[in-house]
Amino acid sequence: MKQKSDIGLIGLAVMGENLALNMERNGSQVSVYNRAEGAEATVVERFLQGRGAGKNFLGFTEIKPFIESIERPRKIMMMIRAGKPVDYVIEALLPHLEPGDIVIDGGNSNWEDSERREAELRHRGIYFVGCGISGGEEGALNGPAIMPGGAEEAWPSIEPIFSRIAAKAEDGTPCCAWIGKGGAGHFVKMVHNGIEYGDMQLIADAYAYLRHIGGKTNEEMSQIFARWNEGKLRSYLVEITAEILRHRDAEGEYLIDKILDAAGQKGTGKWSVINSLEYGQPLGLIATAVYERSLSSTVDLRHEAAALYPPSQVTSRPAFGDSDVDALEQSLYASKIVSYAQGFSLLSEASKARGWELNLASIARIWRNGCIIRSAFLNDIASAYQADPSLQNLLLAPYFQQEITAARPSWRETIAKALLSDCPVPAFSSALSYFTSLTTRRLPASLVQAQRDYFGAHTFERTDRPRGEFFHENWTGHGSDTSSTTYNV
Amino acid sequence: MKQKSDIGLIGLAVMGENLALNMERNGSQVSVYNRAEGAEATVVERFLQGRGAGKNFLGFTEIKPFIESIERPRKIMMMIRAGKPVDYVIEALLPHLEPGDIVIDGGNSNWEDSERREAELRHRGIYFVGCGISGGEEGALNGPAIMPGGAEEAWPSIEPIFSRIAAKAEDGTPCCAWIGKGGAGHFVKMVHNGIEYGDMQLIADAYAYLRHIGGKTNEEMSQIFARWNEGKLRSYLVEITAEILRHRDAEGEYLIDKILDAAGQKGTGKWSVINSLEYGQPLGLIATAVYERSLSSTVDLRHEAAALYPPSQVTSRPAFGDSDVDALEQSLYASKIVSYAQGFSLLSEASKARGWELNLASIARIWRNGCIIRSAFLNDIASAYQADPSLQNLLLAPYFQQEITAARPSWRETIAKALLSDCPVPAFSSALSYFTSLTTRRLPASLVQAQRDYFGAHTFERTDRPRGEFFHENWTGHGSDTSSTTYNV
Repeated sequence: MKQKSDIGLIGLAVMGENLALNMERNGSQVSVYNRAEGAEATVVERFLQGRGAGKNFLGFTEIKPFIESIERPRKIMMMIRAGKPVDYVIEALLPHLEPGDIVIDGGNSNWEDSERREAELRHRGIYFVGCGISGGEEGALNGPAIMPGGAEEAWPSIEPIFSRIAAKAEDGTPCCAWIGKGGAGHFVKMVHNGIEYGDMQLIADAYAYLRHIGGKTNEEMSQIFARWNEGKLRSYLVEITAEILRHRDAEGEYLIDKILDAAGQKGTGKWSVINSLEYGQPLGLIATAVYERSLSSTVDLRHEAAALYPPSQVTSRPAFGDSDVDALEQSLYASKIVSYAQGFSLLSEASKARGWELNLASIARIWRNGCIIRSAFLNDIASAYQADPSLQNLLLAPYFQQEITAARPSWRETIAKALLSDCPVPAFSSALSYFTSLTTRRLPASLVQAQRDYFGAHTFERTDRPRGEFFHENWTGHGSDTSSTTYNV
Repeated sequence: MKQKSDIGLIGLAVMGENLALNMERNGSQVSVYNRAEGAEATVVERFLQGRGAGKNFLGFTEIKPFIESIERPRKIMMMIRAGKPVDYVIEALLPHLEPGDIVIDGGNSNWEDSERREAELRHRGIYFVGCGISGGEEGALNGPAIMPGGAEEAWPSIEPIFSRIAAKAEDGTPCCAWIGKGGAGHFVKMVHNGIEYGDMQLIADAYAYLRHIGGKTNEEMSQIFARWNEGKLRSYLVEITAEILRHRDAEGEYLIDKILDAAGQKGTGKWSVINSLEYGQPLGLIATAVYERSLSSTVDLRHEAAALYPPSQVTSRPAFGDSDVDALEQSLYASKIVSYAQGFSLLSEASKARGWELNLASIARIWRNGCIIRSAFLNDIASAYQADPSLQNLLLAPYFQQEITAARPSWRETIAKALLSDCPVPAFSSALSYFTSLTTRRLPASLVQAQRDYFGAHTFERTDRPRGEFFHENWTGHGSDTSSTTYNV
């Protein structure tokens, strides 16, 4: 044991414990702190006698000796509940810290809180790092994706530790890189989680289609997803979908059929959508996924509605062959490209607005392993942004243009078939809607602007004038030039 | 002139001036206040010598005499910019007010601010009313829809004035009724504006369809909207759409074709969507409308995308006859019902969460006239909630069940046709997606829950167990019972 630890970790709940073990296994001596509760053996004692036994850990239940046990400049990582607790712990740490010390929040914090904390601690000479960590319990132990942001001065000190504990991509690169200043790390983690919502709903759409329209059995669907997992859709979520669909319970029956169709959520999808609205960036697919979870949870309402509106097409099921499965794969793939195009556009817009200078290729690379949305596909995104860092939208990249163009006929036809058969494919639909609007040269938004000018004198731009010049029309021929009109039914 | 005025009005900008004139015309003596700016004639002087000349107004540029000029309990209405200015004016008023006085905010305030202000002023014995007013400048003058909420104690005093100035429905009822406590008035106004976004995008979808798929001229489209305005779609927005489409500019050309397809927005649509996320209520159609405006404004990006992705179907246009126009009308109608079902569900959920006891029938009645979304259709909504005040979703009402069931085949086929022809109908699509999910007995959300349990041990409910019991499965057969698993590409 060295006299001083390389890093300190606060909070030995599931994520903290596993991250501490990961750090220690990868060569760091770790001081761990958890407050003592009650008279029984403390969390710290249980850890030191349990999974931490015989390893390079120093345990503490008091802040002062904990901090004193860490090599300067101190690196202290909080793995605690997001929100007020983070502020309380920072408050408790501050009297014992010295200028140049580093405080890292590895929890699921709101990026605006991280932005604020970085600024506040900078004032006191302390470097704050808001660090998104994805991969859950097992990721924390064996290699998470790590998204650190905040005080860049801290990065050289923590980089070696983080690079060692991070997941590694197939090419060996650690899934960890500096994200940007302020709350950039937690913002990127938030968008990651939003994309996760989208990916899951896209798979759910495909599952609904195979079941409702294809009439496939669980075993058949499992095989289809397993096959897709060897192609362009290769990803963790597709892989576990194949496993879930063939999973049998203790009675030897398919568990999936006994799981209530009421999805829960913890809020990070919602945050992404709220931020997309604040930044004016369409994020329709993720919004659809969030709403769909809410809708699914109103089971009684849905049953009542289902009884009132039976599917009107009870004719014979249309033929459903391998080409339909391939068309569905194309639909899922094209829709997924749209979802990532939306997510990365949000990152790009927030980066501009906040001066984060996000490296989108690097972010795509971080997500290639360790996190829930890890997939082969992220390599292609990284390549697109590598080739053109100023790419305005993923759909403009030559590779994706080619992929979408190839998928497009199948994509449209699959969705049309689903609609006509009352099969819910909300995420596919949302993706195609966005794509169609984005690629329509002349949108009916001209009418929206005309209406706004008609009733509210909100003015409009003209196709034959430069942007930024605004015009008002006296639509009714009466009233003042700047008045809206009225209407009495 | 009476010695004391019936009401005081602060802020003689467009809305305030017209509302003051409306009040005076309807029998009130009004004290008006506007701060003096610079050496020229003040806003108040200009008003008293202009549109206010010879009428029952008292004008002030000082707060104290303004307040003293009003009959007790004083009724003081602010028509000023939302946000901080409202707090500043309240601060300035407070020293001069007496318990029982009433302060009304008639601006476009955030409902949470109104909630806070009501509580703060109640502490000081002052009754605060956060009052949504819809109808723009001309509505303010000739009859707006009025949505007052906050301190109910104030209602008997202000009811006579508000009822006189409000728009009247066809049956003569004033479009004004007490909404509920706290910020209820501004919340309802916010949802009104969100629904307005949705209505406008629905009409835009129909316009796109008629133009892209139907190949209709502006004149033909104008006639179609005019005809729709005599049926179930009768509404202010459909009426002005007919007028807009046939409107010619000074050169005798259709103005609509010269208006840039880049829609602006002021934020109330966005607020509605953010609140729907906070309350977990799907509001997909309005979200789509908000995103579509953002997307439309990226004109250069869209032109680039349009060049990369030309419509792939350049075959001959399919036949398009009267039955297609009728099917489109049905699609617009069914989608509109869905949008209102979503909006009213949000009202209902917020009402429960905040204890507002909103009367949804009354709200529908208020919106029948004076505001932008005024329509015949709101009578049907009022009837549905009148018949069953605890109606959980508008789509469960017998009348709408019948209407949607009749429209459903046309609705599906119209959207499928649009998708297959690369015609953007995002609001229609979003509505149908919601409807399909709502009426699907078994959603693929079971798979979402299985995935969440697989990677995050988030647990699930079972179809064969009561709700509220949660189960976790050891999906992989290894690892602890509560651990998630990992995956290494």
